[in-house]
Amino acid sequence: MPELRFDPLQNQWVIIATERETRPSDLDYRAKYNHVTACPFCEGNESLTPPEIWAIRDPNTFLNSPGWKVRVVPNKFPALKIEATGRRIKTGFYEKVEGTGTHEVIIETPEHDVDLTDFTPEQTKLVLFTYQERLKELYKNPLFKYILIFKNHGKRAGASLAHSHSQVIAMPIIPRNVSLKLQVAKKHFQKKKHCLICELIQQERKNKVRVISLDGRFIAWTPFASRFPFEIFIAPIKHNHRFEEIGNNDLESLSKFLKDVLLRLKSVLNDPPYNFILNTSQNLKACSKSSKDKLPAIKYYYHWHIEIIPRLTRIAGFEWGSGIYINPCVPEAAAKYLRDVKIV
Amino acid sequence: MPELRFDPLQNQWVIIATERETRPSDLDYRAKYNHVTACPFCEGNESLTPPEIWAIRDPNTFLNSPGWKVRVVPNKFPALKIEATGRRIKTGFYEKVEGTGTHEVIIETPEHDVDLTDFTPEQTKLVLFTYQERLKELYKNPLFKYILIFKNHGKRAGASLAHSHSQVIAMPIIPRNVSLKLQVAKKHFQKKKHCLICELIQQERKNKVRVISLDGRFIAWTPFASRFPFEIFIAPIKHNHRFEEIGNNDLESLSKFLKDVLLRLKSVLNDPPYNFILNTSQNLKACSKSSKDKLPAIKYYYHWHIEIIPRLTRIAGFEWGSGIYINPCVPEAAAKYLRDVKIV
Repeated sequence: MPELRFDPLQNQWVIIATERETRPSDLDYRAKYNHVTACPFCEGNESLTPPEIWAIRDPNTFLNSPGWKVRVVPNKFPALKIEATGRRIKTGFYEKVEGTGTHEVIIETPEHDVDLTDFTPEQTKLVLFTYQERLKELYKNPLFKYILIFKNHGKRAGASLAHSHSQVIAMPIIPRNVSLKLQVAKKHFQKKKHCLICELIQQERKNKVRVISLDGRFIAWTPFASRFPFEIFIAPIKHNHRFEEIGNNDLESLSKFLKDVLLRLKSVLNDPPYNFILNTSQNLKACSKSSKDKLPAIKYYYHWHIEIIPRLTRIAGFEWGSGIYINPCVPEAAAKYLRDVKIV
Repeated sequence: MPELRFDPLQNQWVIIATERETRPSDLDYRAKYNHVTACPFCEGNESLTPPEIWAIRDPNTFLNSPGWKVRVVPNKFPALKIEATGRRIKTGFYEKVEGTGTHEVIIETPEHDVDLTDFTPEQTKLVLFTYQERLKELYKNPLFKYILIFKNHGKRAGASLAHSHSQVIAMPIIPRNVSLKLQVAKKHFQKKKHCLICELIQQERKNKVRVISLDGRFIAWTPFASRFPFEIFIAPIKHNHRFEEIGNNDLESLSKFLKDVLLRLKSVLNDPPYNFILNTSQNLKACSKSSKDKLPAIKYYYHWHIEIIPRLTRIAGFEWGSGIYINPCVPEAAAKYLRDVKIV
């Protein structure tokens, strides 16, 4: 069973995949896709994945058979498992928990050689709709405090299969990075009575220098203190803490907006590897008991957003030791490249 | 001038190398060394580096000429610069500081094709002695709150030149990761009246399963919640908060110990890329004013140590989004491989 282990000095949880019995020879730091003779994510190969959890299907087609547009299956090598007991075991200083959770894969398209920049806006909308459906469904379980949806594009960004897919991990804890953001946003609201991200959006719209793209509903910019070259932040202009709540028009608009931003990135940097992270609210049901007395309510201070992190630089000793990133590229210059590029 | 920029949402400082004017085509995520026709770190090529700051030299040899054993020069592309004003500039929510600091390179050997596992213990001792000398010298400057010494081994760990070298970055702030460790260690001491790392060492010695190597003075183990496969932690058994204070016998012992541990790593994983980080105390002079009233004193609760992080796995969307690492390798299994390997 995967274990969540706590490090008392680094003050953080780590998932140890105890079942894999990784041998030194299995650890290969060169970027490559898993060797597969047939792609398990292609239409027609449905039997190569664990049984389907959810899908958008043509009428009169069957579970685990062709005829789908987006398909959700369990991850074959889950980081966390639902069967885990969640039992805490303490040994001296050390604490471990059998990691309860789920790990799903969203297969974004039946076709093998396409990605989000090739999709029709309709197809992207189906993918985003699937994100919403999985969030709504999994957040019904009070065991899951946070659900992270993310996507690794390209081998060097950690994708192990080439076929375009996203991943969903539901966790029994609010992870460190999310918890930090929630704290910062809450503190800001308590002090200023405004949402931090709403205010950041206002400032970026006024300054203009870091804005990549802006329509009536969404804005994309390179953060003032971008950790990585060409890092991109996308947020809805209208305040909303839950991605899973946004309506049909927003979803349609976001599909086009996202394709445009990703095409700009692809054009400027020649299809770079990237990580895509959806940041939405924590599970209000799971956290409601303890947070009842902790006003303000999250719906006022949190604002869902997407982070896109191109993987162009290497994390080295300085970053691990200090926690400070060195970005060789000025965010204002990156924004200008992304803004000015002619999309072909 | 490099800028330290603060991100209000991620709640962290980032160094933006504003002078490099990085163009998209300069960003190449494939691992490679900088193209150099002659290695600037080789003996005889002293004129290819900025002027020497410090060196261990044979008698009757001259600055910036052959005849040295270890040589310290400024980094040609410094992350932080001493000429910076340290001026804070606020624009709306955003804050930036001209990044005052220094960035030095320690050339560990005059020879090109050798690394720490090839060095004689005497040569390694000279390198460790140089670490001490630079820490002592730079900590005289109250501007520098923390000095990080680290080493990137191999292209994929971020080394841009193949010739074996370490780096020293002196910073005007205590960086996030160090500050977090200091807080945890202090809190532990306040509660338990013991050093956290001393207690971890005791527990590891008792458990044995994660111990790689142990002599009368030093211990190496794989942390219980290792973030990465084959992560290694080295610490002195006797409590000491400052690496720069340890005496000649300890230095001699550590040189042999370090070589042995690195040889084990090299043998088990076929010379993997790794990052090496020296964690020592903050600048007591620079921080004394504000910390006078903050007992207990750091010398009681902090314990210097070395972290070695082999770079075998990829950080992907899940890690960026959650801050939780997934380690596919059980630390106890990694320790056994490292303990049992026959060094050739």
